[in-house]
Amino acid sequence: MMAAFDTLATLLGPRFATSDAARAQNGRNEAHFPEALPDAVAYPQTTAEVAAIVAACAAEGIPVTAIGAGTSLEGQHLAVRGGISLDFSRMDRVLAVNAEDLNVVIQPGIPRTALNEALRATGLWFPIDPGADASLGGMAATRASGTTAVRYGTMRENVLALEAVMSDGTVIRTGTQARKSSAGYDLTHLLVGSEGTLGIITELTLRLHGQPEGVLAAICRFDDVEAAVNCVILTIQSGLPMARIEFLDEMMVRGFNLHSGGTLPETPHLFVEFHGTPAGVAEQAQSFREIAEDFGMADWQEATTTEDRSALWKMRHSAHYASAALRPGVRTLATDVCVPISRLAEAITKAKALATEMGIIGTVVGHVGDGNFHYAVRFDPADPQDLARTHDFAGRLNELALALGGTVSGEHGIGLGKQKYMGAEHGAALDWMRRVKDALDPKGILNPGKMLPPVA
Amino acid sequence: MMAAFDTLATLLGPRFATSDAARAQNGRNEAHFPEALPDAVAYPQTTAEVAAIVAACAAEGIPVTAIGAGTSLEGQHLAVRGGISLDFSRMDRVLAVNAEDLNVVIQPGIPRTALNEALRATGLWFPIDPGADASLGGMAATRASGTTAVRYGTMRENVLALEAVMSDGTVIRTGTQARKSSAGYDLTHLLVGSEGTLGIITELTLRLHGQPEGVLAAICRFDDVEAAVNCVILTIQSGLPMARIEFLDEMMVRGFNLHSGGTLPETPHLFVEFHGTPAGVAEQAQSFREIAEDFGMADWQEATTTEDRSALWKMRHSAHYASAALRPGVRTLATDVCVPISRLAEAITKAKALATEMGIIGTVVGHVGDGNFHYAVRFDPADPQDLARTHDFAGRLNELALALGGTVSGEHGIGLGKQKYMGAEHGAALDWMRRVKDALDPKGILNPGKMLPPVA
Repeated sequence: MMAAFDTLATLLGPRFATSDAARAQNGRNEAHFPEALPDAVAYPQTTAEVAAIVAACAAEGIPVTAIGAGTSLEGQHLAVRGGISLDFSRMDRVLAVNAEDLNVVIQPGIPRTALNEALRATGLWFPIDPGADASLGGMAATRASGTTAVRYGTMRENVLALEAVMSDGTVIRTGTQARKSSAGYDLTHLLVGSEGTLGIITELTLRLHGQPEGVLAAICRFDDVEAAVNCVILTIQSGLPMARIEFLDEMMVRGFNLHSGGTLPETPHLFVEFHGTPAGVAEQAQSFREIAEDFGMADWQEATTTEDRSALWKMRHSAHYASAALRPGVRTLATDVCVPISRLAEAITKAKALATEMGIIGTVVGHVGDGNFHYAVRFDPADPQDLARTHDFAGRLNELALALGGTVSGEHGIGLGKQKYMGAEHGAALDWMRRVKDALDPKGILNPGKMLPPVA
Repeated sequence: MMAAFDTLATLLGPRFATSDAARAQNGRNEAHFPEALPDAVAYPQTTAEVAAIVAACAAEGIPVTAIGAGTSLEGQHLAVRGGISLDFSRMDRVLAVNAEDLNVVIQPGIPRTALNEALRATGLWFPIDPGADASLGGMAATRASGTTAVRYGTMRENVLALEAVMSDGTVIRTGTQARKSSAGYDLTHLLVGSEGTLGIITELTLRLHGQPEGVLAAICRFDDVEAAVNCVILTIQSGLPMARIEFLDEMMVRGFNLHSGGTLPETPHLFVEFHGTPAGVAEQAQSFREIAEDFGMADWQEATTTEDRSALWKMRHSAHYASAALRPGVRTLATDVCVPISRLAEAITKAKALATEMGIIGTVVGHVGDGNFHYAVRFDPADPQDLARTHDFAGRLNELALALGGTVSGEHGIGLGKQKYMGAEHGAALDWMRRVKDALDPKGILNPGKMLPPVA
């Protein structure tokens, strides 16, 4: 490894670090995985530097693992086989705002809130919002979504084009600045969601959306889970163009109250938002309220000012930390199942019953308009019983999702935590994913140990 | 080849044909390519039969080329290397309408109009509408779109999951019934648009949309091309949720008049449609008219009844045949460039000037909300000068699209006709597409001679 490290130290100077502090910084995670330290951290500033780093690593078979904000919940950024941690924090520039084409070209290290800050004066925004202030590169690599996917889609629908460094250091561009194309294999979508295992994203062209003229958000309280979830199902089936429709169970509300000092009644809630013209928004809200009232909505509080709306969604985005408040000092395993909307009530009801039966402490929160919800389980990894029970619960929930025609991961990806379900979800297709991996990364240097389970 | 043919004749009985008539039927095309006959035609009825056919062909290295309705404009269905034409006309069933999940599961051979006929009573529809009554399998394989892509997306956004037979006869399933997933490589999108060169699609799960409560369509006349196209650009940039916005130049209007006996004034037009609530539709139409009037719209005719709207879009869908009316008895080469919306006026203006300069006879029609337009050139392939001029024109238009940040194919695909531009559009990425092809079809039996140009 030493020859490559000398090359990289010469290339990057102080932006190549082997100190314990630098390694430890990129070895942590916000989920439940053990620390995993890279041998060194590289902080590239240009695509050419990324290409040179990957080429040097390819020559000696050194693993390369990209890291953005490090907020992933499945450990995708952890260098579990050592090697280089490719830290994109210094590739965080907006390269071009093409307002007239409703897109923006960025470097992958920029965090999502910084991107929207940079767009503010344009009247455009990028809606996708995982809870954390993730980097756009990490979001693309994990095919992330968030509260607005029900209206605007996920990273899958919003990456128009990208640049990537492939496993031998070659730089490629996929997609164009046009809105659609039928020319050739869709390498953009192959790389989006590939978790840095097929190529390293070095630039993204993202679709932007006009900031809606009218916005209306509201907090809806229900007395029970079934009523809230059935309201969601009918809302989606009715075709109402919800901008956001988030479910929170009573435990999640308790977490928010503990974390943010709120005073919401601790029963199931929906947080909703409507986007459109002012008249359109009023019309949508009225249609939604009629459905919600049919399901016995107990209370409706509109967030009328921009500040109220910001506070509402800031609270929602703190769910990961608010869940922690229910049982401080331990770790979180967040499940991420996504099911067909028609099976959502069954999935959530069974999940909650299973949790009760197994003595699981956790919260349920989700982007239920997509059929996606998270059980954030607090557990003590040092307690073997707690650990086993938690993983058993997650496994049974994942099996339930598959049985209902869904997926084990709506938006967090596979990383380290969900490899064991890849066979059950994909069947024979898993072998063809391996063929793609072997073809594009024959030496296996790109984020090894992630996504694809070891061959049995 | 004979052993495999014996196997297939035994397996399929009369659904395996080597007659001249059967071979000729699948050797034709609606574009300008020479006839190309398969050695035999197989008419499978089940996925298991497709798997058996591909396995038998794999054993002897026999080419397999899938065909749906045979309406492609780039010859994707032509068995240019012989072998088996896999005719999906008998795999055309709707397998499940999951109205409560807004999706439908189909066999690939069903034509798009038959699908919507089957959905009529559900209140749902599948909006994607290439001009021809194409099969959904062919549409998925070529990543097709149509007049409604500006609102509902292309096949890329509307295929949720699929089943495919891979090059060794293995059957795989990709995607789930859930609306999103971050689990594993996106093989769905890799197969969509791969033109049968990576796998043979045997089943599709398609996203459905609610039939809009309010619909308003209109014909807008302009005095010149620039005004019409600049109206489109500003409409898209304003974020107005157009359901359809189609441009036709004066020659296309003449073609419609000749083909359908219409009496539209022969100047540039936009055909538009709005979908939403009745109030929302009126609001959208008003906003659009204000923009159009700023650009000097000369006339606005609403199609108020369902019959009027059907007639309007039937006329639009006949563009390929209406173009033929301008110069009967020869062939059509339809270009398919797609550019960023901000460059659309430049692209169309330059294309028309170039056509005039080169003496090209043709029509311009396009899904301009996406930046996609077609120059349908009528030419005589038996006249070497005409042939050379037509290909020269198409080449220069494709180069223009690439120079403007666009693509050579918005929706028709690559097939036989556009391989020579793959290098210019994709650069180094083309080699990585070849790696994918070699990994998934190592014997090269799946639709050989298509999409990827011969290695130089």
